[in-house]
Amino acid sequence: MRDEGRSGCPINATIEVIGDRWTLLVLRDVMFGNRRYFRELLAGSEEGIASNILADRLKRLVAAGMLSRADSRPGQKVEYRLTEPAIQLVPIMAQLGAWGLRHRPTTKRLRVRAELLAEGGPELWAEFMAELRESHLGIPRPDQDRPTATHRLAQAYAAAVAES
Amino acid sequence: MRDEGRSGCPINATIEVIGDRWTLLVLRDVMFGNRRYFRELLAGSEEGIASNILADRLKRLVAAGMLSRADSRPGQKVEYRLTEPAIQLVPIMAQLGAWGLRHRPTTKRLRVRAELLAEGGPELWAEFMAELRESHLGIPRPDQDRPTATHRLAQAYAAAVAES
Repeated sequence: MRDEGRSGCPINATIEVIGDRWTLLVLRDVMFGNRRYFRELLAGSEEGIASNILADRLKRLVAAGMLSRADSRPGQKVEYRLTEPAIQLVPIMAQLGAWGLRHRPTTKRLRVRAELLAEGGPELWAEFMAELRESHLGIPRPDQDRPTATHRLAQAYAAAVAES
Repeated sequence: MRDEGRSGCPINATIEVIGDRWTLLVLRDVMFGNRRYFRELLAGSEEGIASNILADRLKRLVAAGMLSRADSRPGQKVEYRLTEPAIQLVPIMAQLGAWGLRHRPTTKRLRVRAELLAEGGPELWAEFMAELRESHLGIPRPDQDRPTATHRLAQAYAAAVAES
């Protein structure tokens, strides 16, 4: 999370921002689970993130320009939103999921969204990124009439939950 | 690196194997730098990996089935080779590099290979993976007459070194 990394290698530069497992899992939950509040992120964590680690990673992600804190009135809970650089992690998340599907044991309920993303490929990722831009940055997406990738991902997940 | 992860999510499952910055950097150096020996990996590390961390990550990568240790006679140095699952990380490495190029400060000399991989897209990644299979697993690649992606990556790097 430092501005000056250990080397100027682009892979290292990325890892310095997101190469911590909890950081990536927090971003995943904001991105795919649309969880924007501390309590939601804590209660919904499949991996059981600890509250002090969540607080630390949210702080670092804001400092690194990956999340923004929506201004709220005193006493109101803080909303975290993805920034453009964070939204551009979608292809990395999709590839991480695709690799896990092929090479590691996974759970059906948690697998369906990664399967959909892997099958959909770069076209679906671009659609999903456009929807995240709308929902997190307020930038209207093109093709307003089309059923959204977000909707399809949510449907697939709901169907898998119903089956399990 | 445990067999049983904290959740069955495919993204988490991948992160449990490679979601440690040094682990990813060691794999990067075997993959793109063709460094196969402890001393090479230690001396060539752009990020200055410590010798105990390198030893630990190599051990974990072998245990996780990401690297194999080529059997050697006593007294001979151990050679590490990428396994098939590790070779299938090429698209993830390419996307990590592409994101770093766009969003973080990087060094010209260390940037050229990531640029080539980003421009070449999935077709170049597949070619490079076929070459890694030949070189690490002994599986002959198709199109033996074609100049290799490995060669083009090495050339681009050498040109950038000469300029800097």
